[in-house]
Amino acid sequence: MSSKTLKDNGSDLAAKQADWQNRYDKEIGEHRTVVNRSGIEVRPLYTPLDWSENRYEEDVGLPGEPPYTRGIYSTMHRGRTWTQRQLIGLGTPQDYNKRVRMLLQQGASAISLLPCNSGFRGIDCDESPVPLLGTCGTVINTVEHMEAALDGVPIDEISTAMNDPTPFTLFAFLIGVAKRRGVPLDKITGTANQSDYISHFVANHMFYRLSQPGARRVFVDHVRFCRENVPNWNPVSIVGQHMQQAGATPAETVGLTLSTAIQYAEDCIAAGMHPDNILPRFTYFFDISISFFEEVAKFRAGRRIWAHIARDRLGAKDPRSWRFKFHGQTSGVDLTQQQPLNNIARVTAQAIAGIFGGLQSMHTDGFDEAMACPTEDAARIAVATQNILREEAHLCDVIDPLGGSYYVESLTNEMEEEILKVMGVIENAGGMYKAADAGIVQRMIGKSALSYQNRIESGTEKVVGVNCYKSEIEDGEVETYRPNRSAMEAQVAAFKAFKASRSQRAVDKSLNELARAANGSENVYEKVVEAVDCGVTHGEIISCLRGELGFGHPLMVA
Amino acid sequence: MSSKTLKDNGSDLAAKQADWQNRYDKEIGEHRTVVNRSGIEVRPLYTPLDWSENRYEEDVGLPGEPPYTRGIYSTMHRGRTWTQRQLIGLGTPQDYNKRVRMLLQQGASAISLLPCNSGFRGIDCDESPVPLLGTCGTVINTVEHMEAALDGVPIDEISTAMNDPTPFTLFAFLIGVAKRRGVPLDKITGTANQSDYISHFVANHMFYRLSQPGARRVFVDHVRFCRENVPNWNPVSIVGQHMQQAGATPAETVGLTLSTAIQYAEDCIAAGMHPDNILPRFTYFFDISISFFEEVAKFRAGRRIWAHIARDRLGAKDPRSWRFKFHGQTSGVDLTQQQPLNNIARVTAQAIAGIFGGLQSMHTDGFDEAMACPTEDAARIAVATQNILREEAHLCDVIDPLGGSYYVESLTNEMEEEILKVMGVIENAGGMYKAADAGIVQRMIGKSALSYQNRIESGTEKVVGVNCYKSEIEDGEVETYRPNRSAMEAQVAAFKAFKASRSQRAVDKSLNELARAANGSENVYEKVVEAVDCGVTHGEIISCLRGELGFGHPLMVA
Repeated sequence: MSSKTLKDNGSDLAAKQADWQNRYDKEIGEHRTVVNRSGIEVRPLYTPLDWSENRYEEDVGLPGEPPYTRGIYSTMHRGRTWTQRQLIGLGTPQDYNKRVRMLLQQGASAISLLPCNSGFRGIDCDESPVPLLGTCGTVINTVEHMEAALDGVPIDEISTAMNDPTPFTLFAFLIGVAKRRGVPLDKITGTANQSDYISHFVANHMFYRLSQPGARRVFVDHVRFCRENVPNWNPVSIVGQHMQQAGATPAETVGLTLSTAIQYAEDCIAAGMHPDNILPRFTYFFDISISFFEEVAKFRAGRRIWAHIARDRLGAKDPRSWRFKFHGQTSGVDLTQQQPLNNIARVTAQAIAGIFGGLQSMHTDGFDEAMACPTEDAARIAVATQNILREEAHLCDVIDPLGGSYYVESLTNEMEEEILKVMGVIENAGGMYKAADAGIVQRMIGKSALSYQNRIESGTEKVVGVNCYKSEIEDGEVETYRPNRSAMEAQVAAFKAFKASRSQRAVDKSLNELARAANGSENVYEKVVEAVDCGVTHGEIISCLRGELGFGHPLMVA
Repeated sequence: MSSKTLKDNGSDLAAKQADWQNRYDKEIGEHRTVVNRSGIEVRPLYTPLDWSENRYEEDVGLPGEPPYTRGIYSTMHRGRTWTQRQLIGLGTPQDYNKRVRMLLQQGASAISLLPCNSGFRGIDCDESPVPLLGTCGTVINTVEHMEAALDGVPIDEISTAMNDPTPFTLFAFLIGVAKRRGVPLDKITGTANQSDYISHFVANHMFYRLSQPGARRVFVDHVRFCRENVPNWNPVSIVGQHMQQAGATPAETVGLTLSTAIQYAEDCIAAGMHPDNILPRFTYFFDISISFFEEVAKFRAGRRIWAHIARDRLGAKDPRSWRFKFHGQTSGVDLTQQQPLNNIARVTAQAIAGIFGGLQSMHTDGFDEAMACPTEDAARIAVATQNILREEAHLCDVIDPLGGSYYVESLTNEMEEEILKVMGVIENAGGMYKAADAGIVQRMIGKSALSYQNRIESGTEKVVGVNCYKSEIEDGEVETYRPNRSAMEAQVAAFKAFKASRSQRAVDKSLNELARAANGSENVYEKVVEAVDCGVTHGEIISCLRGELGFGHPLMVA
């Protein structure tokens, strides 16, 4: 056996690889240039000449240690698997409750709540036509509704994420439930999944409720309130998913998300908060597309960049501030209405990429999720997919199992470069708030969305059953979820009765205090929390704040 | 940036990793010892201390170059993706023909044919009760049947694997079809999937037709016939799948398979064939279990070992002899009857492992394949899964994408060691033929099967929906495939009419010549091929050879 090392042999390998390249060129037939979604050229082979172990300690290192490329915790999934958190929301609070109990029984380890579209738009159920209610989320307008939705769910033990855009009414209802149950607020864990108002402004207009400056104000107040009162709640979730689903490439997504994180951190620091008091509660929410290795590299690169930003730019000293914690959702954008059972295969591949990327929490889509809220069967299969990958495929046994792969390490470096380029563009525009205000972000996303769409339409990017391998035979008609009409009518009637039974005086007083806070320097969010205890509804709170802080219109740019 | 290399820094990393280990131990809570199916302990983390790049050139190297760890071709899947070969067999020849055309339209790039169980047992359709016919394979007893099954299928362009145990009647029918169509025999490509009689003897008793010595004789004659007459046909497929499905661990499976390959090669060499004339046509057939990384490492290690055996032990000089070419089938053993749609997720994970393992050809199971022949929908989804992984997840872009991963390289080495141990046991017993005859192989497999079953029953190994996450709600009743009863009755009636219409004199003459060859030194298989041209049936050929060469009984050992 030779005792020569590769280092001594570097030129040897280079020569051999040149020979291989010659054979490859001769045998390949047609040369294809392969470019991933982020625009990085993917070569056919990666070897020690593409990524060198010599930089292992600086760039890769050990799990739980900066730069966290291999994971943010020392034990990662071997110690504690990702949280199985299915995003759900459907029908009435009672419908939601039934579904969430089924998922917990099937192995989900945390819950989430998606409100009805009417809620996202900022109105109550009695302001919307009944047939539109509860089709894509649960109708939750009061503390009472939240109580019914979480009946029997131990909110002091189970983490409860809320899809809760500014001004965070769902979280106020959750606090209301905790108070009624006597659960101390420091037992409440979970995440404000939709706190990232900039992403709403640039990418997800449905969730856009308040003017940009108003949202900025409430955001900071909400973070402060949470840090002071609900210390184990994550008030900040920066939603790369919105960017990627709107069309940003995976590299752009991470670049925009980290630029947003810098904006939020600097806003909070400017308001007097200490980085190490807020950054450990920053979390991220990403789409996991089916671009398998690109997603793995995206997450590994994201961790590395954030560690540097948090420490070197934001001045955080606590390692918990340096950790890039994220939830991954398998991307619904990749799913197809055609041949819907094929989506189970897509979700599985996406989920594996997310796991290899080192996620902390995951939602796997139901196979019918391209069409509607998942049915109970589809939701159960989605959870089972996570269970199978963990228990049967044993994907939790080894931390960062792809670490050292020449392709993965090289791609991680290249994704890092791309991400840093995007962040440079935003930085030059004065940061994320200004870049969004100037339409720079929207243009970037729009351009990438168009380019990807062109790739699909030209067949460069193939989607099975859509632009190739179409089938005349479809899978048996998929039954999609529809809420029960009469239960929904009863829900609206009960809501109206509830409003009529309240002390109108208390409601008016709460809303006046909320308006006053919005125009002054008191913590606006504290007033939101107080208002819901007096029976003030979701729609009433938003309507009041829209009056005081402005009803913003997302900036559309061409 | 530091210019220190890892090598200089070896002790540095060792110290840092010791620190990590301390943190890990402190944070892990409960220590779990994780052992894979092959009995190898899986550690929580792999780093440059576990696998060193210093041995890259000797142990890993470049694709298309010995030891082929990264793949047997220079271009691998980037140049030519794996062949999508679904194993199918059902109903009448007409039913088969309809299914095979649908699969070709959906992207399958090669076909296969599984005969009816009656065929595996060595009898014709008129010797079996009609309700048993065509449930798990197609009824093919004559050249006419094969003609109907392959109607419209261009056998000079498409590779056609046959599940065809000794004495290879299906292949004789295929040759008959080629002659009738005027297709030159050197245009016929494909594989005799069930030529591995030793695996039938030790693991798959259903396929066991002739005595062990008789099967050995016909095997060698068949290889010689193919080399001389159908040069692009692969007469040897060594079926690791049988071993693994019977209970052998992945490492045992490869060990037993390679020991079998040595036996077959040495038998042919002893009969005067040159290694470089036969070894390029040796192929392998493996199960891909859901033990994800173990499967990837199994295939990489198998390639490396075979390259050494073919060159150093068997004396082959032609690199084509050194290449470990294999078909992978996602393992039906891992699928469950419970919650059958979950099997789509299992199959996806298995298929990804097979792709990362560098397979040349793949069958993905239908989700209902744990219960019956896949229905048309299930078969279509199975093919779509391969299309999605190739086109959407882009798993073909990079050759051996996990190469360099500390875990994968280290596990490849450890699997290699385990495989070599198993091969040592067989070698000490005098080779695979003698080891099987003595029951050594059967005992090894039985012990592993029992141990795995115990792990499932004790819950050490979890199976979702079976010993954990059971659901009272099952997926909607799965419709399983049943052949049409009256079509099958018509098939049997037509077969009887065909037999009555033959020249009995020609049939008798053919069978006499076959019997004479079996007792002399002529090539037995040549006589099989001649007989089918005179209308001699599958069952008649086997019955004749059983009379002359012995009806073997598989050795059962406790």
